[in-house]
Amino acid sequence: MDTRTGLPVVGMVGGGQLARMTHQAAIALGQSLKVLATAADDGAAMVAADVELGEHTDLAALRRFAQGCDVVTFDHEHVPGEHIRALAADGVKIFPPADALLYAQDKQAMRERLTALGAPAPRWRPVASATDIAEFAAEVGWPVIAKATRGGYDGKGVWVLRDATAAADLVATGTALIVEERVNLVREVAVQVARSPFGQVAVYPVVETVQADGICVEVIAPAQDLPAERALAAQKLAIDIAHDLGVVGLVAVELFDTGTELLVNELAMRPHNSGHWTIEGARTSQFEQHLRAVLDYPMGDTSLAAPYVVMANVLGGADGGLSIDERLHHLFATDPAVKVHLYGKQVRPGRKIGHVTALGDDLTEVRARAARAAKWLQEGC
Amino acid sequence: MDTRTGLPVVGMVGGGQLARMTHQAAIALGQSLKVLATAADDGAAMVAADVELGEHTDLAALRRFAQGCDVVTFDHEHVPGEHIRALAADGVKIFPPADALLYAQDKQAMRERLTALGAPAPRWRPVASATDIAEFAAEVGWPVIAKATRGGYDGKGVWVLRDATAAADLVATGTALIVEERVNLVREVAVQVARSPFGQVAVYPVVETVQADGICVEVIAPAQDLPAERALAAQKLAIDIAHDLGVVGLVAVELFDTGTELLVNELAMRPHNSGHWTIEGARTSQFEQHLRAVLDYPMGDTSLAAPYVVMANVLGGADGGLSIDERLHHLFATDPAVKVHLYGKQVRPGRKIGHVTALGDDLTEVRARAARAAKWLQEGC
Repeated sequence: MDTRTGLPVVGMVGGGQLARMTHQAAIALGQSLKVLATAADDGAAMVAADVELGEHTDLAALRRFAQGCDVVTFDHEHVPGEHIRALAADGVKIFPPADALLYAQDKQAMRERLTALGAPAPRWRPVASATDIAEFAAEVGWPVIAKATRGGYDGKGVWVLRDATAAADLVATGTALIVEERVNLVREVAVQVARSPFGQVAVYPVVETVQADGICVEVIAPAQDLPAERALAAQKLAIDIAHDLGVVGLVAVELFDTGTELLVNELAMRPHNSGHWTIEGARTSQFEQHLRAVLDYPMGDTSLAAPYVVMANVLGGADGGLSIDERLHHLFATDPAVKVHLYGKQVRPGRKIGHVTALGDDLTEVRARAARAAKWLQEGC
Repeated sequence: MDTRTGLPVVGMVGGGQLARMTHQAAIALGQSLKVLATAADDGAAMVAADVELGEHTDLAALRRFAQGCDVVTFDHEHVPGEHIRALAADGVKIFPPADALLYAQDKQAMRERLTALGAPAPRWRPVASATDIAEFAAEVGWPVIAKATRGGYDGKGVWVLRDATAAADLVATGTALIVEERVNLVREVAVQVARSPFGQVAVYPVVETVQADGICVEVIAPAQDLPAERALAAQKLAIDIAHDLGVVGLVAVELFDTGTELLVNELAMRPHNSGHWTIEGARTSQFEQHLRAVLDYPMGDTSLAAPYVVMANVLGGADGGLSIDERLHHLFATDPAVKVHLYGKQVRPGRKIGHVTALGDDLTEVRARAARAAKWLQEGC
């Protein structure tokens, strides 16, 4: 409890853009997010008042950080489960709990648990050898998708294996792996749900996530041409997963859409790129919702704020001779209604440095505006 | 320029809720607001990373603060004009300029300038004696409104004088005064405009401001039953005032609506309570707009984000046995869609500690929701 305000203090481990945007939401709720950052120039560390520097792998640093926090949560999924358990044993309220976060940290554990839950998923198998992979491929056909059980994100830790030789090369690296069939998908969609310790849930509309090279580049809310019963089933599935896994906070369920069914691809247990559209596009942003969830406040309304909302990621582009500030001038001149979110990051090619959101009544126009805005910031033209 | 991000640094003198909410907007633009606060527990000082402590009347403190700022602006109108001129002479970009801010600091200067501009206004007169006031009252009728030329806000510095005795008592205090006729008004409205150094302007829809005891309690956007040509004239008037006075940043023009015409009541030259509805209710919040204006970025879209938007101020209420955190729980349970903004202030009866915003398609319902939400936070029931 912040004695100056009588309001709770939420601590977030990790100082990236998710913490940065959660801090904006915290301010409205009368709070100030406490941030454990690894560097003073992390996106959130540059904008929050209460910042500690330390590594998320350092239990002593986590213990120091947790002091004075009413609740501790995460802007990434990399805090070791044993550290989370140690803090919980100290009496720290820390969400999501280690037993839930595991399923966002370990893809094999996630696949086993969701299989037990009966969630629709690609065929998959844990593998220990090239022979295991070849046997699986004999059943489902080459190519197969190999995933590191731990540590992957944004397309890293995922490989398309086209033959036994590729399988052998990957196995030789010693990476713990599962393999999955390559799904013949027509697109990817995602659904976010927030769950409080009390067990209240709030689910957002299903959105389409457009990927390029394993990185999300565009999110369209709501997902178009998705039969109502299939959208409802996806929301129900997300709620079931949140309950079954004991999630507290946000979980994003990423799904393959085959055109006839939705298959679970990944889980993320934190605010997620697929929910950035909610800042302007939903009555309650995912960042406020995450705070409400971990604080056991009643959940906020997840309704759309406009018929169509499109978010486009801004990746660092080549240096086109214009500074980011100049690009911003030009963008604002070209589209006064687009909303910009910059994360305070140094521009490096391919790095997510921000996102833009457009909304309106005409999806074709809204998509074009978001794409153009992202391109302006990325390439300066 | 923040060398870490390549983006500008805006410094705001004053650490209240306006700076607090401007910081939220700055974060989205990739910035972090630099704040000159008088105390470490000022609303903005508790949430911003870059805070200096100092008084706005201390030129040395202002000079120190201005170092490293690309632009300096204000969350109140109390910085002495000579200090602003001294900083400008040092080469500091400081907006609005002293020659513009004067008209928000000095009511006599404002009345003289707007009279010269031909802006519709109540009849008024500078007065130095009880006789002056009585002569004015003989023309316009008792009661008359007396205003301190300097330092008034939220109903302070304004008196209703019913007779010559009251006039004599007030004059005896030595306060420099103007008097105005008491306008037979049906309501108050306001219009905000932002102007950049380049001279670009962006004007918001005219809103109705509902006052109680001289304090704004509710804002309805857009103002209802205002003839289109009168709304347009008010917007045009605000633009003319911004241009004529050389405003850079936001100016709020507060107007009396007599039912047949709109008369200028006050000017405010900063983000203003009458514009808090824009955070969720307009495509560009007044706080982002103020930053865009002082940075000479192209202005943002001022369109409404919903048919009706209602903001209600939350005043500190009596201690009803429930903490502000408990009140928040109950409010969120009763209305999941209302948006809350708390300023980090200790609760004191009558003090503005936050505001709430509701929006939707049915004005009666939206007003009721905003009023109920404010009451819940204020009284705990």
